[in-house]
Amino acid sequence: MSPEQFIIGVDLGGTNIVVGAMPVDGSREIGTRTLPTHPELGASGVCDRIAAMIENVILDVRRDAGADRDSIIGVGIGSPGPLDRERGVVVVTPNLGWRDFPLRDEIMRRTGLRATLDNDANCATLGEWWCGAAKGGRNVVGLTIGTGIGGGLILDGRLYHGVSDVAGEIGHTSIESNGRRCKCGNYGCLEAYCSGPAIAERAREAIHTEESPVMLSMVDGDLSRITAHIVYESAKQGDLVAREVVRDTARFLGTGVSNLINIFNPDTVVLAGGVTQAGDILFNALRAEVKRRAFKPAVERCRIVPGALPVSAGVVGAVATFKQQVLGSI
Amino acid sequence: MSPEQFIIGVDLGGTNIVVGAMPVDGSREIGTRTLPTHPELGASGVCDRIAAMIENVILDVRRDAGADRDSIIGVGIGSPGPLDRERGVVVVTPNLGWRDFPLRDEIMRRTGLRATLDNDANCATLGEWWCGAAKGGRNVVGLTIGTGIGGGLILDGRLYHGVSDVAGEIGHTSIESNGRRCKCGNYGCLEAYCSGPAIAERAREAIHTEESPVMLSMVDGDLSRITAHIVYESAKQGDLVAREVVRDTARFLGTGVSNLINIFNPDTVVLAGGVTQAGDILFNALRAEVKRRAFKPAVERCRIVPGALPVSAGVVGAVATFKQQVLGSI
Repeated sequence: MSPEQFIIGVDLGGTNIVVGAMPVDGSREIGTRTLPTHPELGASGVCDRIAAMIENVILDVRRDAGADRDSIIGVGIGSPGPLDRERGVVVVTPNLGWRDFPLRDEIMRRTGLRATLDNDANCATLGEWWCGAAKGGRNVVGLTIGTGIGGGLILDGRLYHGVSDVAGEIGHTSIESNGRRCKCGNYGCLEAYCSGPAIAERAREAIHTEESPVMLSMVDGDLSRITAHIVYESAKQGDLVAREVVRDTARFLGTGVSNLINIFNPDTVVLAGGVTQAGDILFNALRAEVKRRAFKPAVERCRIVPGALPVSAGVVGAVATFKQQVLGSI
Repeated sequence: MSPEQFIIGVDLGGTNIVVGAMPVDGSREIGTRTLPTHPELGASGVCDRIAAMIENVILDVRRDAGADRDSIIGVGIGSPGPLDRERGVVVVTPNLGWRDFPLRDEIMRRTGLRATLDNDANCATLGEWWCGAAKGGRNVVGLTIGTGIGGGLILDGRLYHGVSDVAGEIGHTSIESNGRRCKCGNYGCLEAYCSGPAIAERAREAIHTEESPVMLSMVDGDLSRITAHIVYESAKQGDLVAREVVRDTARFLGTGVSNLINIFNPDTVVLAGGVTQAGDILFNALRAEVKRRAFKPAVERCRIVPGALPVSAGVVGAVATFKQQVLGSI
């Protein structure tokens, strides 16, 4: 039998569940798998699904590492929030429709394993810090830009949660005090300009048939099919309106990231999530905008990097939160 | 001889120097005094001035507490930045015209006392936390709103400095990505809308003779004499334009403070500095705006309070930074 111990990570999202295992030292990932969440199953049904995925990952650990069930010390869970970490409860998740659901204990009951709960955006940032693009950083700001914009903060080498576990809502910082109404109720939130759907919405608003031939042909004239991905692809192919939207996105996102750099003086800003897969066209414009805006001594000390773990950052981070909460350090 | 030990605090500003002493337990202030800085004396002349003030404070400690010079364990200095804390050097201060000046060692040389250096806005926040309006808080965001807007962050019970000591530049977070050019080079900074001079400037721009009778009579028709204080006094007396400026200020400041609440989920936001002396007219509008914008679970856990140490927050905080850096805890 292997003396190695393992932790399982669960990344619960509105669309997908990702589960995998890692040895305590974080040296490798085992059995990482993704399944659709199917929120319509309800909280209990989704928990059954997660538990089944955990059992399959345990089989993989047994096969790959020759380790038995006793070598699994627990499960770290990352979930959309807000959460009550101490009680292991999901307070509310608009995407899943849950309210005051004791997710941690439900997983413990189904698996017989000890479990911890933390915010999904925190886990994603922690994953990039432990094993990904933010490795070696001491002050790290993480943004996950997809359907929404989530944030995670690692300050002086520790995950920062705030006074009631709702810190890091970077997507809901306003960069236009009289700007677009956000679904959170605020005005001009970063998320209202730079999330995937917000980028697509700005493209739809800006579209002119004569100047947007590429974008229009990519969606066969059906504006409802425009996505952030299509905007960036069209811009790469020279579509003028798409380029304008990409330029504006760099300005909005650059404003938000500059604010974070001036506030945190971080060594690393790591951006992950679907939108960041646009790659250089996004990152180069973003870095230029930040250089134009943020404090020089802070900019000079900060790298702005894409996430290195597009699939598993949340799983790796969930493992890390279990390790930090139960073993005391990462 | 008293066994009590004392720390001296120095709050160096572009306009005034404030110096005072406290016993290590922070239970009282002794000999706090204020003198104009006279930056035209140059760095060395200003240091002579600080050293003379320190000697006078030591005489007060001797008289009030019967303690001799040996009971003074050191001097904490708060200075405008950016700074190199480790080397005790002021990297650059636009207000004083200094560059790479070894302030800490110059004060040590003149007084024979051990000294530490930290940022003035950090010291002001730390002072309010140790002995003032933010007492008992664990996650505190401090803003000092005067000629500029400075910020200090106490996170999980510790002053947060960032990777190169320039964190907390809250005044230079943008709330209008295409807004007013700030002297820092960025656009739409909080400071460009809500510092004292920025409030006065917005009033000058908005002024209409028929609708601003109070404001105009308070400055005898000389617009250059408008200050933030005059704007708030005029608003209290019903001046329509002044009221509009006050309303806009609440919106801008409310945007900035909401951003901080969504990012930090703090238990306390403490606002100090000349502009906050407007009192309820500012704080009530600010709290209403924050309630309208920020995340409910974060707003519910956060008090927004005026500083309680208008003269000596910087001195108390400088004492606290010395204590934290030299004795290891506050």
